[in-house]
Amino acid sequence: MQPEANTILKGDSFLYEFSLSQNDLDAFVSMSGDCNDIHHDELAATESPIGPKTVPGMLTAMVFSRVLGTMFPGHGTVYRSQSLDFRRPVRIGEKYVASFCVQEVIPERHRAVIDTIVAEKQTGEVCLCGTAVVINLRRL
Amino acid sequence: MQPEANTILKGDSFLYEFSLSQNDLDAFVSMSGDCNDIHHDELAATESPIGPKTVPGMLTAMVFSRVLGTMFPGHGTVYRSQSLDFRRPVRIGEKYVASFCVQEVIPERHRAVIDTIVAEKQTGEVCLCGTAVVINLRRL
Repeated sequence: MQPEANTILKGDSFLYEFSLSQNDLDAFVSMSGDCNDIHHDELAATESPIGPKTVPGMLTAMVFSRVLGTMFPGHGTVYRSQSLDFRRPVRIGEKYVASFCVQEVIPERHRAVIDTIVAEKQTGEVCLCGTAVVINLRRL
Repeated sequence: MQPEANTILKGDSFLYEFSLSQNDLDAFVSMSGDCNDIHHDELAATESPIGPKTVPGMLTAMVFSRVLGTMFPGHGTVYRSQSLDFRRPVRIGEKYVASFCVQEVIPERHRAVIDTIVAEKQTGEVCLCGTAVVINLRRL
């Protein structure tokens, strides 16, 4: 298969800035059914280890799906695995940067191993990190 | 802290049946921004390794967030980590069972290690598996 111009190589990286809103949280709860009270009830949130205005970890993790599936490597990407280590709370309205760094590409299997991180934009502190293994027949 | 009646112990397990609809997929795409064409374009899907009518892996993974955050252990649960190994496609309209088995509880840290699996209801074949580490101050 002839590689496309946007073939991804070992060492390539990609950055994506984002923030999450109350609307994002409401939509996540509506579709996931995850109405865990620590994300909605101020008292429950304050008494929890994560504090108020924190979004569910899986909502933050969706940024990996968005970027891997539509930008880097992009359309055609199929997930094989994703590890998620939730290190710090992600809060509504704050600015974050998702970063992606290609650790390994196995062209004969159209496969890449990509480190995935979400960090606070202002401080650089890591909130969520993990590693994705993806397949993309067109771009890997 | 006095454990509640529904304290979770090593060896406990929980089953949750579910299926995903086209509406679920549409809502996921709308909120995640993951419009990867293999989930929408029949030709792209057919040419991909996963085939047609397959939902994004992260949409399936949301069932873990739903159950851990609202049922088992339930409200108050905070994610520390989740691994996700996507083994087989999950398709719109098919029936699946999510199963949860407590491997370890560390009461002094209010922490549990829980194996998490999604399998086809009819065949029992595993589509998604992994391990969650969660904290719950009230129930662990």
